Amino acid sequence: MPKRIAAFGEVMMRLTVPGVELLSQSGTLHYTFSGTGVNVASALSRMGHEGMLVTRLPDNPLGDAAAAYLRKLGIDLSFAGRGGKYLGMYFLENGFGVRPSRVTYTNRLESSFNTAPEGTYDFTGIAGRVDAVHFCGIALAMNDGVRAHMKALARAVKQQGGTVIFDCNYRPSLWGEDGYDRARPHYEEMLRLADVVLMNERDAMLTLGFRTEKETRREQLEELIPLAARTFGIRTVAGTHRFVNGDNSHSLQGFMFTSGQFAYSDLLTFAVYDRIGAGDAFASGIIHGELEGLPPETTVRYAAAAGMLAHTVAGDTPMSTAQDILKAMTASAGDVER
Amino acid sequence: MPKRIAAFGEVMMRLTVPGVELLSQSGTLHYTFSGTGVNVASALSRMGHEGMLVTRLPDNPLGDAAAAYLRKLGIDLSFAGRGGKYLGMYFLENGFGVRPSRVTYTNRLESSFNTAPEGTYDFTGIAGRVDAVHFCGIALAMNDGVRAHMKALARAVKQQGGTVIFDCNYRPSLWGEDGYDRARPHYEEMLRLADVVLMNERDAMLTLGFRTEKETRREQLEELIPLAARTFGIRTVAGTHRFVNGDNSHSLQGFMFTSGQFAYSDLLTFAVYDRIGAGDAFASGIIHGELEGLPPETTVRYAAAAGMLAHTVAGDTPMSTAQDILKAMTASAGDVER
Amino acid sequence: MPKRIAAFGEVMMRLTVPGVELLSQSGTLHYTFSGTGVNVASALSRMGHEGMLVTRLPDNPLGDAAAAYLRKLGIDLSFAGRGGKYLGMYFLENGFGVRPSRVTYTNRLESSFNTAPEGTYDFTGIAGRVDAVHFCGIALAMNDGVRAHMKALARAVKQQGGTVIFDCNYRPSLWGEDGYDRARPHYEEMLRLADVVLMNERDAMLTLGFRTEKETRREQLEELIPLAARTFGIRTVAGTHRFVNGDNSHSLQGFMFTSGQFAYSDLLTFAVYDRIGAGDAFASGIIHGELEGLPPETTVRYAAAAGMLAHTVAGDTPMSTAQDILKAMTASAGDVER
Amino acid sequence: MPKRIAAFGEVMMRLTVPGVELLSQSGTLHYTFSGTGVNVASALSRMGHEGMLVTRLPDNPLGDAAAAYLRKLGIDLSFAGRGGKYLGMYFLENGFGVRPSRVTYTNRLESSFNTAPEGTYDFTGIAGRVDAVHFCGIALAMNDGVRAHMKALARAVKQQGGTVIFDCNYRPSLWGEDGYDRARPHYEEMLRLADVVLMNERDAMLTLGFRTEKETRREQLEELIPLAARTFGIRTVAGTHRFVNGDNSHSLQGFMFTSGQFAYSDLLTFAVYDRIGAGDAFASGIIHGELEGLPPETTVRYAAAAGMLAHTVAGDTPMSTAQDILKAMTASAGDVER
Amino acid sequence: MPKRIAAFGEVMMRLTVPGVELLSQSGTLHYTFSGTGVNVASALSRMGHEGMLVTRLPDNPLGDAAAAYLRKLGIDLSFAGRGGKYLGMYFLENGFGVRPSRVTYTNRLESSFNTAPEGTYDFTGIAGRVDAVHFCGIALAMNDGVRAHMKALARAVKQQGGTVIFDCNYRPSLWGEDGYDRARPHYEEMLRLADVVLMNERDAMLTLGFRTEKETRREQLEELIPLAARTFGIRTVAGTHRFVNGDNSHSLQGFMFTSGQFAYSDLLTFAVYDRIGAGDAFASGIIHGELEGLPPETTVRYAAAAGMLAHTVAGDTPMSTAQDILKAMTASAGDVER
Amino acid sequence: MPKRIAAFGEVMMRLTVPGVELLSQSGTLHYTFSGTGVNVASALSRMGHEGMLVTRLPDNPLGDAAAAYLRKLGIDLSFAGRGGKYLGMYFLENGFGVRPSRVTYTNRLESSFNTAPEGTYDFTGIAGRVDAVHFCGIALAMNDGVRAHMKALARAVKQQGGTVIFDCNYRPSLWGEDGYDRARPHYEEMLRLADVVLMNERDAMLTLGFRTEKETRREQLEELIPLAARTFGIRTVAGTHRFVNGDNSHSLQGFMFTSGQFAYSDLLTFAVYDRIGAGDAFASGIIHGELEGLPPETTVRYAAAAGMLAHTVAGDTPMSTAQDILKAMTASAGDVER
Repeated sequence: MPKRIAAFGEVMMRLTVPGVELLSQSGTLHYTFSGTGVNVASALSRMGHEGMLVTRLPDNPLGDAAAAYLRKLGIDLSFAGRGGKYLGMYFLENGFGVRPSRVTYTNRLESSFNTAPEGTYDFTGIAGRVDAVHFCGIALAMNDGVRAHMKALARAVKQQGGTVIFDCNYRPSLWGEDGYDRARPHYEEMLRLADVVLMNERDAMLTLGFRTEKETRREQLEELIPLAARTFGIRTVAGTHRFVNGDNSHSLQGFMFTSGQFAYSDLLTFAVYDRIGAGDAFASGIIHGELEGLPPETTVRYAAAAGMLAHTVAGDTPMSTAQDILKAMTASAGDVER
Repeated sequence: MPKRIAAFGEVMMRLTVPGVELLSQSGTLHYTFSGTGVNVASALSRMGHEGMLVTRLPDNPLGDAAAAYLRKLGIDLSFAGRGGKYLGMYFLENGFGVRPSRVTYTNRLESSFNTAPEGTYDFTGIAGRVDAVHFCGIALAMNDGVRAHMKALARAVKQQGGTVIFDCNYRPSLWGEDGYDRARPHYEEMLRLADVVLMNERDAMLTLGFRTEKETRREQLEELIPLAARTFGIRTVAGTHRFVNGDNSHSLQGFMFTSGQFAYSDLLTFAVYDRIGAGDAFASGIIHGELEGLPPETTVRYAAAAGMLAHTVAGDTPMSTAQDILKAMTASAGDVER
Repeated sequence: MPKRIAAFGEVMMRLTVPGVELLSQSGTLHYTFSGTGVNVASALSRMGHEGMLVTRLPDNPLGDAAAAYLRKLGIDLSFAGRGGKYLGMYFLENGFGVRPSRVTYTNRLESSFNTAPEGTYDFTGIAGRVDAVHFCGIALAMNDGVRAHMKALARAVKQQGGTVIFDCNYRPSLWGEDGYDRARPHYEEMLRLADVVLMNERDAMLTLGFRTEKETRREQLEELIPLAARTFGIRTVAGTHRFVNGDNSHSLQGFMFTSGQFAYSDLLTFAVYDRIGAGDAFASGIIHGELEGLPPETTVRYAAAAGMLAHTVAGDTPMSTAQDILKAMTASAGDVER
Repeated sequence: MPKRIAAFGEVMMRLTVPGVELLSQSGTLHYTFSGTGVNVASALSRMGHEGMLVTRLPDNPLGDAAAAYLRKLGIDLSFAGRGGKYLGMYFLENGFGVRPSRVTYTNRLESSFNTAPEGTYDFTGIAGRVDAVHFCGIALAMNDGVRAHMKALARAVKQQGGTVIFDCNYRPSLWGEDGYDRARPHYEEMLRLADVVLMNERDAMLTLGFRTEKETRREQLEELIPLAARTFGIRTVAGTHRFVNGDNSHSLQGFMFTSGQFAYSDLLTFAVYDRIGAGDAFASGIIHGELEGLPPETTVRYAAAAGMLAHTVAGDTPMSTAQDILKAMTASAGDVER
Repeated sequence: MPKRIAAFGEVMMRLTVPGVELLSQSGTLHYTFSGTGVNVASALSRMGHEGMLVTRLPDNPLGDAAAAYLRKLGIDLSFAGRGGKYLGMYFLENGFGVRPSRVTYTNRLESSFNTAPEGTYDFTGIAGRVDAVHFCGIALAMNDGVRAHMKALARAVKQQGGTVIFDCNYRPSLWGEDGYDRARPHYEEMLRLADVVLMNERDAMLTLGFRTEKETRREQLEELIPLAARTFGIRTVAGTHRFVNGDNSHSLQGFMFTSGQFAYSDLLTFAVYDRIGAGDAFASGIIHGELEGLPPETTVRYAAAAGMLAHTVAGDTPMSTAQDILKAMTASAGDVER
Repeated sequence: MPKRIAAFGEVMMRLTVPGVELLSQSGTLHYTFSGTGVNVASALSRMGHEGMLVTRLPDNPLGDAAAAYLRKLGIDLSFAGRGGKYLGMYFLENGFGVRPSRVTYTNRLESSFNTAPEGTYDFTGIAGRVDAVHFCGIALAMNDGVRAHMKALARAVKQQGGTVIFDCNYRPSLWGEDGYDRARPHYEEMLRLADVVLMNERDAMLTLGFRTEKETRREQLEELIPLAARTFGIRTVAGTHRFVNGDNSHSLQGFMFTSGQFAYSDLLTFAVYDRIGAGDAFASGIIHGELEGLPPETTVRYAAAAGMLAHTVAGDTPMSTAQDILKAMTASAGDVER
């Protein structure tokens, strides 16, 4: 049964240099609009749910273009207000092989989203109309205003019985020096409000400050994730281990810890076209499985396949339908479909 | 010595989304015109022959554009009439890695080619001016009118001593349910008229209903192809075995059965850019070898190299010259030619 | 106060050759999705209303792309079903100066919309949720099935007290020989159901068979439009006179007949970028004025300005907001806005 | 009745900066292949004749691309040889309004055409298979080798009863200092061989050294053209007067002198998209009328309309069909054709 | 004799939607880098001088791209520092006819230029190496830091005997409410430092608060400009009157007041491609004339022709050479140059 | 400490067919300007030095475009004159997998560079202002005039104590039949003038005629390179061994022989985007190390990393900064940098 899920987050304008040229070589950019919330709301709407976005867009032609693009993705904008003057932007120069991709940001702290005053969003109204709400650690890094919005919305949804999802997604460059220490109390507050959390053992160690004597990632994971779940009262914790291979391919394995048990997907290896947003596709698969009450083994395999497919799609935002994902869970690499 | 070969078949407009975007992401299409007949006529003209097309194009700007494009490919349009109103079209969304390419068709049954009335083509006139004629199973799947044209032309060419070539090319989606049963009598009729046939052991089993106890593809091939040749009085049968590898490469081995003997090419492995039309390049190589009287070993290696090169070219239609193919038969993967 | 308006009509894929090249010169197409219903629903949503579309799209990647595009335009697709296999398409080659633009159609009669079986649409449900419904003469030209849908929906809306709008929009090429005679009964039936009608004196003479001794267009208009309104019980009739000037500019004058009075806009003269869809922008302006209860003089000036602006926008579909139109009603040709 | 016309001339690669950018602003070029001979052969094939080209192309990928492009235009290449190493090229930067377009040439004197050795072309064979042959003053400016080819071919065609057409087309930059004096004997020799000549009173004065006391262009024309016809024994002389207006439009009037009488087209005024090649379209219209035996009044109006339409088409090469031209002779500037 | 002129000003990234689409229709942007200082330095370097830029660019890939682009324009960057994090950006949607172009800014106040701390620039060093320095009112509107830089540099250049140029260029949107009052003292300070000023009678009235009883623009100009020159001790005042015509053309007349006399250019009327930056081309022409000591009549005609040509060039930045401008001063609208 | 290095060489216009299409399939070209000298000067300027170019460009729009492009790359053009009429050009069709890339040249012998008369360059002046000068074997292959320029400049720099660098870079197609014999004396003369030479054992054997009994490339290298250094009095010899792998990756190992010792980089294996110009990146790394006095082990690793990165960049010209190279020397293939 389709659910209504609201994602809270900033909409960024992505300006990509076509092909593999640098900004100082090209004269053309392709633009799209994305962000963790956008990716999750879009992915869930392709899985048959109603994906909504809680955000704030400027009331100018850039805001119009963003809104048009989000509607195209199938995202419901009933909770997206207009106000402020700027849109966060980032420039992407694609790498090739040993040359990494480069991201250059504009001043996102002045964006409509990051300057939204108290009272911008009707938290009670939103909470009354959704089954679940999704947050991520990137928004948590912005400023006190955004953090206040996040926590108020999470509490409102929890109070009305909805599911709270939190993706840890710690970005060192956003928190700056002593970032882990400054971030920890906010992370802990969100984790206590959350029912479903996306994280892995590195988040547990670095962001939450957990310690372990174990040496392999798998052992660390299996010690720390249950501990985190217990500590903060989280129903379900899920995440991935990613391996960057030398030949333009990545490998990905998903895990899910729920009801005291771990479930794992196979280790999937695949060629990568655009890596950005793939974590959001995995998260969306987990949310779908949780809300639909699928068995953990199915959920984690579905989420891993969704994540894998998101690496093969142009742009940040997952475009695969539930049907595409189910096919990818069984099929081997395919020839032309005709 | 250059020969005149006419290919009978529909011209399709191919509308390709650039790069790896989906139709719902992009706003731009690149268009070309192709079809099995187009591919074979074009490939043979690059091998030094006169490639002609027996077809029917609409008398409107789309028909003009198709004719211009076919002339550009070097195809003689003396036997291509104008009439009817529509051109068959298909949309191609390129896949990437584990995400398959997708083809979406428009209603080709209303096309100028598929609605050509009796009397459209001057079969006797054509037969008097060509050394060989090529047909394929896709056209055979269309409707009774097209099938009648095919058989009449094949008979006319046979009568005047020309070579009849038939590529089985069975497409399940075109014949629908119970397709094999509905297709079989038409295939049998074409096979009896044909001197040179493109097929492999799967066609023998599925389309012709042949049975075998053998288990490997090679054993099945070596039992069923001679049987098919004997049953229908075919001079030469050729075809390929294709293997889709995980890393965006394919492997291809060509075979040829003639004068009671099998000849095989090496198993070629190569990176794939555009797979569509590669089978037609192989067929063209076989036709070239047959018409030029080359030894079977040379012919099948030439055809396999032609097929391999066609995977590295943008678009459906083979663009390699005889010289390119000969170079590819000997050389290893090359650096810049300058 | 915003209203809910549903437009009934086919979605076409428009494939435009970029610049002024011909299909036989270029290799690239830009695609968008449009149609009278699309244009009206989009224009009204930019004027602050909820524009909805009653249509049927194929359940394949082309249908997905159309739906994404329509959402981007801000059109509500709650009443847009999925089924059938094809989408109507047309190719547009832009003219230049004395060389006219050319439109080439594919077989739209096989489209999902034109093959929608009885029972496809829930007419009572739709009628219960809208303030007005819009139809046009292009859909009326399709086939008996589409005509039955149109009349049933018009009756349902009328019954529930909604406003029925009908744009005569007679296209000779769609009705073929003896078209006026074949069309007349259907037009008369729609006119009897309609509250607001878009037509001018030529429609009255050619389509409805009215006669007049008057010689100037203005005199003919002022005699025949009141007659048509009286004959069919139409509340409001509106339309335009267009003049194609030699220098790539057009002139346009709107009129509106309501409560027994004519109101006229000024004669507007302006440079033309893309003429297709401008009539739908005018119609949307009339609908807006009618539903908002604006004075006829204001309505017709607003509609004419909307029509004028639609000539300056790329693509079929009007993109101007209410604010843009109000500014164009007062301002002269502007410099950069910065 | 369709005729076979061979045009003798060089094929140039045209490299156009898209839009109105300069070479030092852009990074992209669009390329086509043209030349007076190409334009005339292409225009005549669109008028229903068989347009052929007598030329020489390099035997490399540029030559392949040129040949493909010419076939696309519908030009027969039976008389086009391959040899030499280079193709003449020119770069075009489009002007805008008061800023003129700029042409920059590469070293065309080293081109395959301009270095074709004696014996390259089979003049007798060509002459035996054509109804007419076309030459132009640009080729005459190249070098002694090209001039020798021209005269030999003209003589061969004259001898076998074919029609010889010569377009004076004097380009000062090609002949250099003292150019008129150096050019005159070659022009006189070609004029004596020619049946149909394209020139106007300026050619008569500057190139041929004729003198007149008359002051208006019309008077000069009506004195000097009959004189030129008499002096060199030319059956028909035709040409145009062009006026560049301030507003991106040109005006054009065609004239034709034959059987001792002048015929004139109307003065046509029209917006200009791409002016290059329009003179060749006019010439082709004259050739068509002459070969078909149309009345001079019709021929000159047809030629002027063909010339006018060529200004509205992208690229050098006329793309209008006989039907387009006939429509343009009667119609006023049109709206969309649908 | 070539001079060294430094322009002080911000570099902006211009992101233009191609063609006439809106941001909400397109997905592609073309980017260039411009600004009044960039335009003036570039224009002067095309007139044979050494154009330098005093500015500050971020030390990231956007700053690299800007520097590469400026070098391409021929601007010397010896005085352009690197530091700060952001580059000012603006989005441009091209209008068409009655639909105006739209500019949307990002937060330029956070740019590297606008946050340059005291001590960023070596004013004495710069003043020692240049003949003249150019400032404009846009930079003056930024903040106190930028204003301090401007005044310090102007003083340093004046002290060392260089020429100080100031373009009033008042932008209401940058100064906000009560802008004229807030701006006036800063304008007065700059005017007292300046030798050459770009302004017209509107600047005198609005920005400086001068009053006049005269009614025509010409009379106002001839009263107020001498008054301004006298009041602030300005050697030369120059400017333009612009008229926006209905048909996509503008008219422009330049004036220059020096040594107590007015000189005027003709009123030039011309089609407009890209209006932005044309005022900077005019200013550059005035600077060139002043520094070269040309007679005022020549200078103002040269400047007006430079301004006119800048309307016909893609992008903000003038691209015409001294030779192009001289040709435009004499020639009428030209045909192809070949 | 930054050095001033002048590279002597021709600027070529590179016209690349986008994607993997052939010239006979596409209609679009991307153009850049390159050449060994360009690549070296650009690479060195990115490593913090002042890269200058000694060359001659035509005084026309192509020369302007080249100069603008070179300035964009950061190359100082103080020593680049303008004169002559043509620019050398080459067309590049990208290969794919087993299909090699193809290069087609225009007649470069007529270029401004190759026709530069004696006295074009001020050798003494140049030598007085640079720390080093770079030459390559491609220029040596042109004609006697160019060779005279090379030797004169090399002598002038040597005389004034600068470093002379020579890259052997023998191109068989440029020297033609008996090329090695014709080339040898010129190579020997340059080698005697050179302090730093780029070559490997194949150059020693083929170009210099050295012989060896050794069988492996490594053994041949270690025997012949010291011999060459001794014979011609060369301080440092460096070069690479390249291996083309089957899967679109290459492997590269750099060596450097100086002070009687060999230093080697690791064998680097990496995916290849654009192979042209990578040798020049390696050479630039060697020059950087030599001029900065880095240890040979560091220099050769730095040069190999620079060469590797140049394979991942669009276009001929290395774009990596010193910082990028240092990162690539340590890092493994990276993920997104954000």
